[in-house]
Amino acid sequence: MVRPVAPHKPAHAEVLKLLSEFSAFGATDAGGVSRLACSRQDGAARDHFVNWLKRNDFEVQIDPIGNIFGWINIGEKDGERAFLCGSHLDSQPDGGRFDGVLGVVTAMVVAKSLKDASALNRISSEFDKLAVVAWTNEEGARFQPSLLGSGAFSKSIPLDSAMAYQDADGVSVEEALRAIGYLGEDVPLLPDYYFELHIEQGKELETTGNNIGIVEACWGAIKFEVTIEGRADHTGPTPMSERKDALLAASHLIVAVRNLAQATASDLHTSVARIKVSPNSPNTIAENASLWVELRGSDQTELLAAAAEFKSYLSTLPQGTGCTAKITKNTMRNVVSFDATGTNLTEMAIRGAGLKTQRMRTVAGHDAVNLQAVCPSSLIFVPSKDGISHAPDEYTSDEDVLMGFDASLAAISSLLVTPVSHFNTGAQNA
Amino acid sequence: MVRPVAPHKPAHAEVLKLLSEFSAFGATDAGGVSRLACSRQDGAARDHFVNWLKRNDFEVQIDPIGNIFGWINIGEKDGERAFLCGSHLDSQPDGGRFDGVLGVVTAMVVAKSLKDASALNRISSEFDKLAVVAWTNEEGARFQPSLLGSGAFSKSIPLDSAMAYQDADGVSVEEALRAIGYLGEDVPLLPDYYFELHIEQGKELETTGNNIGIVEACWGAIKFEVTIEGRADHTGPTPMSERKDALLAASHLIVAVRNLAQATASDLHTSVARIKVSPNSPNTIAENASLWVELRGSDQTELLAAAAEFKSYLSTLPQGTGCTAKITKNTMRNVVSFDATGTNLTEMAIRGAGLKTQRMRTVAGHDAVNLQAVCPSSLIFVPSKDGISHAPDEYTSDEDVLMGFDASLAAISSLLVTPVSHFNTGAQNA
Repeated sequence: MVRPVAPHKPAHAEVLKLLSEFSAFGATDAGGVSRLACSRQDGAARDHFVNWLKRNDFEVQIDPIGNIFGWINIGEKDGERAFLCGSHLDSQPDGGRFDGVLGVVTAMVVAKSLKDASALNRISSEFDKLAVVAWTNEEGARFQPSLLGSGAFSKSIPLDSAMAYQDADGVSVEEALRAIGYLGEDVPLLPDYYFELHIEQGKELETTGNNIGIVEACWGAIKFEVTIEGRADHTGPTPMSERKDALLAASHLIVAVRNLAQATASDLHTSVARIKVSPNSPNTIAENASLWVELRGSDQTELLAAAAEFKSYLSTLPQGTGCTAKITKNTMRNVVSFDATGTNLTEMAIRGAGLKTQRMRTVAGHDAVNLQAVCPSSLIFVPSKDGISHAPDEYTSDEDVLMGFDASLAAISSLLVTPVSHFNTGAQNA
Repeated sequence: MVRPVAPHKPAHAEVLKLLSEFSAFGATDAGGVSRLACSRQDGAARDHFVNWLKRNDFEVQIDPIGNIFGWINIGEKDGERAFLCGSHLDSQPDGGRFDGVLGVVTAMVVAKSLKDASALNRISSEFDKLAVVAWTNEEGARFQPSLLGSGAFSKSIPLDSAMAYQDADGVSVEEALRAIGYLGEDVPLLPDYYFELHIEQGKELETTGNNIGIVEACWGAIKFEVTIEGRADHTGPTPMSERKDALLAASHLIVAVRNLAQATASDLHTSVARIKVSPNSPNTIAENASLWVELRGSDQTELLAAAAEFKSYLSTLPQGTGCTAKITKNTMRNVVSFDATGTNLTEMAIRGAGLKTQRMRTVAGHDAVNLQAVCPSSLIFVPSKDGISHAPDEYTSDEDVLMGFDASLAAISSLLVTPVSHFNTGAQNA
């Protein structure tokens, strides 16, 4: 196999070392990590990131939603054109060691390598500063919605709302950030380009044997929180015909959401992965149930049609169960295309480095999708073994990790020397 | 309306006063109580009960499972024939003010009234002692199974197992009892008769206009804990056909359990009222789900047939969902008939006191069902408004409460003077 650039031996070693170090924060017996956003474990991972940045002479900024930026200068100019690269450090409750952290680690070492090689002082770039970033609460596991830090940064979520969202125990994002010491006050530069590497969380690369996925677009996602109201009653004597069982109604709804995906000829993905039942006691009929429903699709029109069908089903749900159902929260992420010029340049640089690439779309949301709303952005994928993700056996081999690093280095190096006006800056998804 | 006996004005006032006092322990804003077994609130209610017993010269015993007994003597003999009456003090998480506590309060005041009137010294009874009892964890809300204290006392549940059951936070019954100071060491007398008053938790009495239900039998109940294993995966990219969604499989099962009740011509009642999903994160397909399934019926043969049908469904569940399901816990309570002579005497005494009675069956389990396995037992019901129970709007009017007290006083007085050999002591349900 042709290596993309000279064998970055010390950089490669540092990528693997950092990856291993980060996987200690919230390590689970099953071999994964449980590092919920703004938890003690997340705080420890953040400290490790910040300490590394300071040790390597990056200037650290923390913004009000807890996003962490580590800045270095490009050249001698004192301008404000910024290139951002990174991902997130939080994980699912019983998640894997690669999701998010791999994009942060590769960005860290790419930035350090360029700095150490004095490359940043020698290149002719219109960018003035480069930052490695770790976004807050990408996963949406502890706080809903997901992509919270990049959403607040890119103004797709108002900062006040983002700070006020609460976890299941009623702890707000603001309180949780304060508790771990990451409630910042800095106002970072808005970027002129954003680059992110992530694991694929699917099996396309593994199936085709390609090294790197060049992500052209992100599926849209519509998320509903639904609350079903029934009536608490004794599970014994209450006649079956008089029950208003919120868990039964929820079950009908979960099956209907699945059928939505099977009924359509399109590529619609649907799920209900979180449920909250009250009082959730074996002897008391469920009084109410809350469900977190997701619809995802690559075609905006079909996605909206599915959402309409879901709402129509919801309005008929009371029939037979005696319950009422209503949507209490509703978020929508449109189908997003990444900057076409940036995507082409990224692909060319990575191919030029000798790696096999393929174009793809992402179903999962990523911080890069939020960033594309404010600046041209690129997202690349490395393979995930068996496509497994959000689970302890999520795995990307060392070789694939290092090809991801090499690809990032090649792409970022190329993007940095491209005149900013060449990107389709008018083509962002509003 | 004809009052059953002389108007027990001070006793009536004390019943209502005690009922009001107990409803303060764990009072909720909704007007009910949340007094989970062995919680701080339950501890406070127990203290109130014990203080009342001591103040009224009852001898207090606490057994190893935390059941509380308050003993008084009948006559001057020093024998060991014991008459027990009572119910439970724990409640559902957001339960009502009458379920359980009403049977304890009426037993308290009946015993005190008989003692104060020197009736117990003057009657000719084969019983030597009378105790008011409060059983531990009747509800089964915090610790499963329900009827735990009376189950351990009647040996239907081994004491060691009963002590070791854990709540959702991993706290054992033993630890919880120790924390509230009710891990006792006393070994109370085994009773020769047990009497319990409870709210109906149904609408039969309200519909017929009768005052008191004479319970002949208790429906059988079969309870299963089922665990479904799926696979954690990202809800976005994972192809629909490759998902192993434990919450989807659980939903199919919940619907099937409901259909079991609708398919049969019998009076089968079925429910799933508790579910636990992991990791229960909106973006991760449910890896596993646990369900608490109940089947209840008045006919033992039909109940067993329904259980067989349920198991058969469970074995086909993997088809289509990719999940596996297994039963992890399985408890069974047979259809139980109360002592026929005792039931007749109870009915006659209550009718003799001028109250309108009707025979009925109970669907819900009660401590009396466990006691009937060790001694002849009687269970009577007072009306529940709209049949609502296990909910804050559970309600029995003061008038109905006091008729329940009068009925208890009449029945217990009659049962105490009946020769023990007259009861069908051989007819207990093993």
